[in-house]
Amino acid sequence: MTPTATPTPIEHARRDRDAALARLQDFVRIPSVSTDPAHAADVARAAEWLADRLRAAGAQAVRVDPTARHPIVYGEWLGAPGAPTVLVYGHYDVQPPDPVELWATPPFEPTLKDGALYARGASDDKGQALTHVEALAAYTAADRTPPVNLKYVFEGEEEIGSPNLEAWVRAHAADLAADVAVISDTAMVAPGQPSIVYALRGLSYLEVEVTGPPRDLHSGQFGGAVRNPINALCAMIAQLHDADGRVTIPGFYDPVRPLDDAERASLAAAPFDAGAFRRAAGAAGSWGEAGYSAVERMGARPTLDANGIWGGFTGPGAKTVLPSKAFAKLSMRLVPDQDSDTVAAQCAAHLRSLAPEGIQVEVRNLHGGQPAMIDRAHPALRAAARAYEAAFGRAPVFTREGGSIPVVALLGEALGLSSVMLGFGLPDDNLHAPNEKFEVEHFHKGIETVIAFLDALPEALA
Amino acid sequence: MTPTATPTPIEHARRDRDAALARLQDFVRIPSVSTDPAHAADVARAAEWLADRLRAAGAQAVRVDPTARHPIVYGEWLGAPGAPTVLVYGHYDVQPPDPVELWATPPFEPTLKDGALYARGASDDKGQALTHVEALAAYTAADRTPPVNLKYVFEGEEEIGSPNLEAWVRAHAADLAADVAVISDTAMVAPGQPSIVYALRGLSYLEVEVTGPPRDLHSGQFGGAVRNPINALCAMIAQLHDADGRVTIPGFYDPVRPLDDAERASLAAAPFDAGAFRRAAGAAGSWGEAGYSAVERMGARPTLDANGIWGGFTGPGAKTVLPSKAFAKLSMRLVPDQDSDTVAAQCAAHLRSLAPEGIQVEVRNLHGGQPAMIDRAHPALRAAARAYEAAFGRAPVFTREGGSIPVVALLGEALGLSSVMLGFGLPDDNLHAPNEKFEVEHFHKGIETVIAFLDALPEALA
Repeated sequence: MTPTATPTPIEHARRDRDAALARLQDFVRIPSVSTDPAHAADVARAAEWLADRLRAAGAQAVRVDPTARHPIVYGEWLGAPGAPTVLVYGHYDVQPPDPVELWATPPFEPTLKDGALYARGASDDKGQALTHVEALAAYTAADRTPPVNLKYVFEGEEEIGSPNLEAWVRAHAADLAADVAVISDTAMVAPGQPSIVYALRGLSYLEVEVTGPPRDLHSGQFGGAVRNPINALCAMIAQLHDADGRVTIPGFYDPVRPLDDAERASLAAAPFDAGAFRRAAGAAGSWGEAGYSAVERMGARPTLDANGIWGGFTGPGAKTVLPSKAFAKLSMRLVPDQDSDTVAAQCAAHLRSLAPEGIQVEVRNLHGGQPAMIDRAHPALRAAARAYEAAFGRAPVFTREGGSIPVVALLGEALGLSSVMLGFGLPDDNLHAPNEKFEVEHFHKGIETVIAFLDALPEALA
Repeated sequence: MTPTATPTPIEHARRDRDAALARLQDFVRIPSVSTDPAHAADVARAAEWLADRLRAAGAQAVRVDPTARHPIVYGEWLGAPGAPTVLVYGHYDVQPPDPVELWATPPFEPTLKDGALYARGASDDKGQALTHVEALAAYTAADRTPPVNLKYVFEGEEEIGSPNLEAWVRAHAADLAADVAVISDTAMVAPGQPSIVYALRGLSYLEVEVTGPPRDLHSGQFGGAVRNPINALCAMIAQLHDADGRVTIPGFYDPVRPLDDAERASLAAAPFDAGAFRRAAGAAGSWGEAGYSAVERMGARPTLDANGIWGGFTGPGAKTVLPSKAFAKLSMRLVPDQDSDTVAAQCAAHLRSLAPEGIQVEVRNLHGGQPAMIDRAHPALRAAARAYEAAFGRAPVFTREGGSIPVVALLGEALGLSSVMLGFGLPDDNLHAPNEKFEVEHFHKGIETVIAFLDALPEALA
């Protein structure tokens, strides 16, 4: 009879798959929509749930720190004196589920289908954040200790621009000292193909309010002699791009770091799932800034999109109103070395300059985040590559990501940390859209990747 | 002792002012919003209220005719054999009160303030339509008979484009035979200055739906490589006007009857309340088709306005969605000899031609109405002029109106009737907008004008 070997943390994680998935289902059931004041109590509940789970996983000094709006969950495991320290960042808040009627299953009732878990937050970011807590739980359950020290920071305001995170990080900078940060909030390029994001776009998100006549008028009575704010807003937005798909805001491209040939070749070499892109984008995908590939347009170039527009009569039927006001939400995705506040100011000035006579423009800066770039030669990326290969059986490719994770810039600036983007999502996870999902296999392999990453870190950073 | 003279209908109307105003207040309390299915029962209630009032005023054969949607109220008084017959048209349905939050007083709780009655429908058209019923009531109360025969048609679908009126009129054409029609649903140019509208603009009202990607996407992930339907819709709408404020739809202006010098001079001679126009339009008023005055732009030239627009995220906060769809409601005001259906088809084709690659466009024709012009030399207009002068102490001026009263074209075509526009509203009555009102004095003098008009008709038409 051979002696029974104690299971490793990875082996334990494999045995615990069903329970871990059930925990994720509990987590995504909480509608922690940070932008909606009606969900404030749900956000708080999600924070408490996560704190409880951190404690159960073996973290110490776990606490829920209130902020001016939604709390920050902190926990640590510092049982490896002399070993490197890793700061784990994630977020437990989610986007609104709108438009709810387009969900095939209720957004906060997790549903397993075709190997994926469908729920708001499944991929962004509850499922990915939970891989780190489950990894710690696997060490604890396997009666092992992680080979590094761990500090966990989970915020509840990522989807609204993290208004209170920076002050909290700066106030706790000494306690947050670490050697490297790790964040799981990005997508792999394709199922089973790990990828390491080394550049993230920033964001500048504005709300524009244009006013024409001081009150709503009858379009029959006044139409043709009074400037219509909807038509004016449309004309202003239309002028924000030129015929080549370039943004027309003066100065917008000035600080943009050009792509060199080596980087363009590296980006072109990463597998790009053209089929998945076509399915997501449909016929609307054949567009973008002239002179750049789709991959470059989505990751390496700045953009401008209208995210919402409204004004006048929008109910059923016909109302012949010449409205007083029209509104739009506009956001720009930024790349190094654009600055979020500068771009917001440039855009607001440009909008004011485009306003026709008789139209007043107000621009509100709703939120922003800085773009970020990570040195591809950082040793922690070697540990991440090895971990991905162990869990997924394939070496990762290096990519740029279109989305914004402003905390990467914050952790670099406030704590001097480089961030490893250890993402497990997929491009078709429907982030911020109906029917968000997370591949169940990526959740489980994500937990294994985190364990392998932590195991590989001491040697890589030595 | 002098013998007590029997009061004339006008004298009786003057004694009955308070009661007539109270009846108008009852009428506007009924929220007969025809476009909103939730108010269908209120529309029916308003029809019954009006039928009861017609009976009480002395009309005969009063009935409420059902249609596919909202009923038509009919009544007649045919006690003047050999005398001319007048067809009175009005409507008892109203526009939605949105945006309700901008009303100073509740839209369906009539409020007297500064000599005006504030309520949805006070001017458009309950107050104006009621002048005709009150005029008949004054004859009856004064124990006189009108010198003409009267046929009353009040519909409940004017604000949704009268989808069932034409079929009803054609089915009852023989019973509706008359010598002239009279409609009170227009504005006088200024307080105390009567005016006779001899041209009305038509309408073509479309809803546009543009589709980009097949589902909502994350603007960070896909922004810059996928055509955004809001941006595309804005660009399309922006191209509907050129730099001179002219509509760019091919063929749009081809059938437009040019303004001759005599008519331009006549329009310029009518008093134009520039102050009221400035107050209504604010700074947004200094706009329009190059080469035309504000009066001409509002009455004699065709126009295009966006009446509503919506798409993407419109709630509070920031959601970085690249939406699948965006919508707009567009309407064009038409002048003789444009045709509503032709213009709708031209606009839809133009919108499709403006759609960039990857954007699908659907256009729905929500409703329309033909423009109309009345011969300024018609003898009934002389009777109207005399009646206005008797009631208001001033001769009327002749004007064109920007709004649409498609029934004018229908009555001309189906019944061979010219329509006299005997309006009592004012340009600042806030039609289709918050805080609609009707001058109380114009209501009472309107009743007197109707009586004087009926009294003058036999001689004018002889």
